[in-house]
Amino acid sequence: MIMLEERWRELADVKDELSERDWFMGTSGNLAIKVSDKPLQFLVTASGKDKRKRTNEDFLLVDEFGHPVEETHLKPSAETLLHLEIYQKTNAGCSLHVHTIDNNVISEIYGDRGEITFKGQELIKAFNKWEEDDILKIPIIHNFAHIPTLARAFSEHVKEDTGAVLIRNHGITVWGRNAFEAKKILEASEFLFRYQLRLLEYKPYQLFKVV
Amino acid sequence: MIMLEERWRELADVKDELSERDWFMGTSGNLAIKVSDKPLQFLVTASGKDKRKRTNEDFLLVDEFGHPVEETHLKPSAETLLHLEIYQKTNAGCSLHVHTIDNNVISEIYGDRGEITFKGQELIKAFNKWEEDDILKIPIIHNFAHIPTLARAFSEHVKEDTGAVLIRNHGITVWGRNAFEAKKILEASEFLFRYQLRLLEYKPYQLFKVV
Amino acid sequence: MIMLEERWRELADVKDELSERDWFMGTSGNLAIKVSDKPLQFLVTASGKDKRKRTNEDFLLVDEFGHPVEETHLKPSAETLLHLEIYQKTNAGCSLHVHTIDNNVISEIYGDRGEITFKGQELIKAFNKWEEDDILKIPIIHNFAHIPTLARAFSEHVKEDTGAVLIRNHGITVWGRNAFEAKKILEASEFLFRYQLRLLEYKPYQLFKVV
Amino acid sequence: MIMLEERWRELADVKDELSERDWFMGTSGNLAIKVSDKPLQFLVTASGKDKRKRTNEDFLLVDEFGHPVEETHLKPSAETLLHLEIYQKTNAGCSLHVHTIDNNVISEIYGDRGEITFKGQELIKAFNKWEEDDILKIPIIHNFAHIPTLARAFSEHVKEDTGAVLIRNHGITVWGRNAFEAKKILEASEFLFRYQLRLLEYKPYQLFKVV
Repeated sequence: MIMLEERWRELADVKDELSERDWFMGTSGNLAIKVSDKPLQFLVTASGKDKRKRTNEDFLLVDEFGHPVEETHLKPSAETLLHLEIYQKTNAGCSLHVHTIDNNVISEIYGDRGEITFKGQELIKAFNKWEEDDILKIPIIHNFAHIPTLARAFSEHVKEDTGAVLIRNHGITVWGRNAFEAKKILEASEFLFRYQLRLLEYKPYQLFKVV
Repeated sequence: MIMLEERWRELADVKDELSERDWFMGTSGNLAIKVSDKPLQFLVTASGKDKRKRTNEDFLLVDEFGHPVEETHLKPSAETLLHLEIYQKTNAGCSLHVHTIDNNVISEIYGDRGEITFKGQELIKAFNKWEEDDILKIPIIHNFAHIPTLARAFSEHVKEDTGAVLIRNHGITVWGRNAFEAKKILEASEFLFRYQLRLLEYKPYQLFKVV
Repeated sequence: MIMLEERWRELADVKDELSERDWFMGTSGNLAIKVSDKPLQFLVTASGKDKRKRTNEDFLLVDEFGHPVEETHLKPSAETLLHLEIYQKTNAGCSLHVHTIDNNVISEIYGDRGEITFKGQELIKAFNKWEEDDILKIPIIHNFAHIPTLARAFSEHVKEDTGAVLIRNHGITVWGRNAFEAKKILEASEFLFRYQLRLLEYKPYQLFKVV
Repeated sequence: MIMLEERWRELADVKDELSERDWFMGTSGNLAIKVSDKPLQFLVTASGKDKRKRTNEDFLLVDEFGHPVEETHLKPSAETLLHLEIYQKTNAGCSLHVHTIDNNVISEIYGDRGEITFKGQELIKAFNKWEEDDILKIPIIHNFAHIPTLARAFSEHVKEDTGAVLIRNHGITVWGRNAFEAKKILEASEFLFRYQLRLLEYKPYQLFKVV
């Protein structure tokens, strides 16, 4: 149970940091961290909590079906299925789902293309893109109101131990081998999105340029 | 009196949170929370206070006419009448009036239409809009300098236990069954406004598209 | 000396609040608060300090010529002359000079006209403009590098106990009867500037409309 | 070793301040401070750390070749070579490399010209430009993925004890005689960049005007 407490604290620290940036507006967003592999168990955000407060009901432990491991009055976040896809298909240890203005606007502007690409921007190194010609692609999927359908669409883009997927007008989900890496991917994504939006104000033709 | 203290603390916490975001610029804004139903009594912001400080003169208890329950040197906020409309017509327990750049700009851009609508944006779920085709409408009313006139115009849009009304160039008033819900409605509204404003920079034709 | 300590603490509190908002970038900005009328003495920012730190060398007491009252190694801010104009010509008790992106951009865009006007925006009430047709005018003066010349140009607009003057590409100076009022004027000004800049993005023709 | 501890604390304070502004997104950025001249030794950011946390492994001491002075499991930042150029060619005591949205966007918009210039903006005084006609030039260099090549391109612009160089889509590097001055240069640069970007939204022709 020491592992459980440690992971809880790690996830709570990430939550505090993201909520300081106001990245959970209107109780949006959810977070998860893996506690054990066999059997698969992970902590996930309880539904309907104020993420600016730190309480001992912020998360609950769920199993490989996304069901609570123990009896509880807490309800796992409606989007637990997306986190589940990540832990079933990769070695990721932490996954974060966050709504920001920037990721929502980017997802709408580039939504019809199904992806946004970045090249020649130093911050793509956070995704282990080190060469001058490397290209980072972040897919954008349709926001199905039916969560199992959304989870299937999402699953097609879950292939590596780190990654990021935009859901159109519904935020981003990122993952990494641990909380540090997931947070790094998230911060780099948000930086790139805001950079791109600002740049479009001055170089509007880029909106139509596919790398 | 335990209820009174508890509600005071709740409202003071909301005030602290909103003032951290600088949502009370120039001493603007006011807040209220219901303490009892029969007789109707609620706490409301005292006039002319610095909302970044937490003191025991931040709020005062008023009755069903918006008058102080006890003799006091404190003056209820000039806009107490708007809060009163909410508690008289619904089961709301908390109401918040806040000026932000985003809500002021939205209220001016969409003011002539009398409302702003949102569709296909995940955050409208905060308003209990769960279906893919659901539409959220937030009315925008004229900013009458005469407060009783303003309160009457406002009252026409106060129908449910949760809601939001924009006053042109004069902020937003939101309400919910409790402080948690009022804050959720406020945060979701602000998110949607900023999202819409940013989107308009890249998809300007949307300014003229009515959903 | 109790008055001196009290005023010092008040001014230090204002400094802390403004520096949290990053309104003193690159060691810019300066603040003053009156300590006595006869003889005129006021505390003013010492030159070249990091305004994000709170030390007992942040301010020094100066006289009706802007000279240090006691021998000191501290140098009064180069713009002490502007604060002096305020205390000599009005009953103001506190004055604040702050550079923000918004006030600098507004001062450049509207600089050729020599002023910016606001009407129909609720926040002008902070300037005691309560009627629906009231107009707020904030003058914009040329940024003379020679401080005595700048002080003379500034002085022409110092007529009342509260006020605000923009210096082109050189921030704003506001004043009020006390620290609370000066801060209110400053916050309302910054709100109005940002509001106007955002609005111009959507209603660009307003750039050419003089109220 | 007292000097070493003092410099460490100074650099950690700067790191805290910049990280509060979110200027190290995605683990980007690095900082250095000189500890001794003969032999040249300076503290520099250890690679791959979360800069929002303050730990005793945040920095390590390196020599005139950028190699660790003592055996350690810590790796100096990949960009230590750039800091080294500064300490070898000038009397600077502190150097900061930071990625912000503003400095990245400016570096891309003005990148083809190889520099950005400022005139008539009060904040250039932070660079000791005091006359009304003074011009500040900040060079923009190509972002070579090969760090020694980048360091050579960077070195061409390292001539004085204070300065600033933009790397295209790769942030800014600033330096000054001590931590206070380096931070002042950084803040003034960021202010000027954001000012220029905002101004371009309203005066787009300035994009094509070379001072």
